[in-house]
Amino acid sequence: MQHSSVISSHKAVTITFSNYGLPNKVLQAVEYELPQPGLGEVTLKLIAAPINPADLNQIEGTFASKPEFSKRFGCSEAVAVPGNEGVFEVIALGKADSNELSLGDWVIPKTASFGTWATFKNAKVCDLISLGKPNGLTPLQAATIAVNPLAAYRMLKDFVELERGDWFIVNGGNSGVCRLSVQLAKLWGVKSISVIRDDGNLGEVKQELHALGADHVITEEQLAGSSIERDVNEWTQGKMCKLALNSVGGKSSANIACQLADKGTIVTYGDMSKKPVEIPASLYIYKDIVSRGFWVTKWKKDNPKDFEQLIQSVAAMFREKKLKLTAVASVDLLDVEKVRSDELLSLFKSSIAKKGKNVIVVK
Amino acid sequence: MQHSSVISSHKAVTITFSNYGLPNKVLQAVEYELPQPGLGEVTLKLIAAPINPADLNQIEGTFASKPEFSKRFGCSEAVAVPGNEGVFEVIALGKADSNELSLGDWVIPKTASFGTWATFKNAKVCDLISLGKPNGLTPLQAATIAVNPLAAYRMLKDFVELERGDWFIVNGGNSGVCRLSVQLAKLWGVKSISVIRDDGNLGEVKQELHALGADHVITEEQLAGSSIERDVNEWTQGKMCKLALNSVGGKSSANIACQLADKGTIVTYGDMSKKPVEIPASLYIYKDIVSRGFWVTKWKKDNPKDFEQLIQSVAAMFREKKLKLTAVASVDLLDVEKVRSDELLSLFKSSIAKKGKNVIVVK
Repeated sequence: MQHSSVISSHKAVTITFSNYGLPNKVLQAVEYELPQPGLGEVTLKLIAAPINPADLNQIEGTFASKPEFSKRFGCSEAVAVPGNEGVFEVIALGKADSNELSLGDWVIPKTASFGTWATFKNAKVCDLISLGKPNGLTPLQAATIAVNPLAAYRMLKDFVELERGDWFIVNGGNSGVCRLSVQLAKLWGVKSISVIRDDGNLGEVKQELHALGADHVITEEQLAGSSIERDVNEWTQGKMCKLALNSVGGKSSANIACQLADKGTIVTYGDMSKKPVEIPASLYIYKDIVSRGFWVTKWKKDNPKDFEQLIQSVAAMFREKKLKLTAVASVDLLDVEKVRSDELLSLFKSSIAKKGKNVIVVK
Repeated sequence: MQHSSVISSHKAVTITFSNYGLPNKVLQAVEYELPQPGLGEVTLKLIAAPINPADLNQIEGTFASKPEFSKRFGCSEAVAVPGNEGVFEVIALGKADSNELSLGDWVIPKTASFGTWATFKNAKVCDLISLGKPNGLTPLQAATIAVNPLAAYRMLKDFVELERGDWFIVNGGNSGVCRLSVQLAKLWGVKSISVIRDDGNLGEVKQELHALGADHVITEEQLAGSSIERDVNEWTQGKMCKLALNSVGGKSSANIACQLADKGTIVTYGDMSKKPVEIPASLYIYKDIVSRGFWVTKWKKDNPKDFEQLIQSVAAMFREKKLKLTAVASVDLLDVEKVRSDELLSLFKSSIAKKGKNVIVVK
């Protein structure tokens, strides 16, 4: 059993917002003295926190999972702390009747709306999942372990039975979820077709995706072309795809659905095109395909035990280098102990303005 | 056991086509002497044959279920006989080792592509379902029993569990399937919202649908309006709809899907708008709705025993006047014994040109 350790109090800096709106308009930052951890609590130091589209939607007020607003940090208005994902190090233990956590352990939040955009914070042990000591796990891997790898894993497992040699197709093929899905598929002997947008660096992206394990990489234009059904038929030796993963919508969803086998399933988990999911009626009526959705936040809430187990499995895959994290950019936060509120705010704001998936990492 | 009865041979007239194309271009008609029924066969006289969109699509070559082309009726080219649905009277029995059928029985085809557009024809007993003697069943009811009532019945039963007091929503609300679905729902204590197009006779259609049992009848414009979610919430006392039946597609499918409860299902069985089924990604991701399809031809093929039983149940509902057939127009074929090929052809062609669901009925 660990006992509370007396530590010097920390100056914490946290990003907040009091009204929904455009992140760069509504975000503020406050400094405050972090109290000692209470009973069943620990004090956490930020290791890394990603900036996900879901975080930005949450600040805009359009995300289905809402944060808690309350008067804290000495603010006169009720504020919420953004950031649903991230990894922290345990730096102090409050009085607790369990030895679940040790100093130096890395932890991630158990639920959404944890408020990860803070340099230090106190949290209840029961709200955390321990990754143990890093042991080769990188800050970027740990910070992003609970969304993209889980989404990729569950979508390949929970909708159709993919056996060795079976095929799936995925659009938005250059995204984090897709890059993880083709790697997991490769580990399991499942074949993949990744559909990407031609952003001018086609050769490079194709090479990267093939190196990760993608069997075929095609552009949205090729997917929409007249020979694609013949090609997919040939690649899959007439089996077509059992599963399609859709994060784009619009015509792209119709075009990947057309590559499904009879009774195949298309799973939507994003809407990058901001257009509805379109599927020709004939695929429903004559091919009996099924169109469904997946939301990792809901899955974690409904399956807390499986969630914790899966986090440990994915962490092990990262440590054993069976799974690679790519397409993630990091932004360094120097000297977390001494950072000022205006510095933290401008770091987050400038990272939000950048393209791609950015993760704030403590040096 | 019934024995073969010797009858005078019949002059039969049948509609044929040798190439796929526009019905009014490719249809022909031939007269021929019908031979005596062979072993296990019966001779059938037409009572009534509908002209369904599926029949026209089959002639155009776009229907998934293809007819058989063969050299028969003395034609030099291989021909097919259109007509997937219809009711016949048994007028002669061939040698057979069963007493399944008697003279005067009404029968319907067991499978699609039977070729019902013929005044007389021989058929195998094993390809027929007997409705017994009419006993109050009308030619229109019997001729259309195997598609619309079955589709309505199965779609209400097979996708979600609808209990008394549960709600469903259906677009194309003035169609045959929808009129049957609201009646079946009413019988089972299930509540309905029918969405119709405003074709100028709104008051009349609303009255008809309410009389059949529809709880609410709204226009596509009302469905697309800003207050509809509040209205549906109020009507259903917050339950929203468990099921949506879609035969329209495009925006209408998105709009009925928006009235679904969490984990609700939208079933597509037609595409009147010729636009893809559109559903906002958020309904898949955050409400976990499911989008599927239904094809009655496939269901019948996969469930032959259930199909025969259901036909008898629906026939009983018609005889007991629990179920009404509406929105079907009949076209009389006078003197089926003496009709000429040019007369039959012009009757079918003129009926195809008319709007609505037409059924050729023998007087």
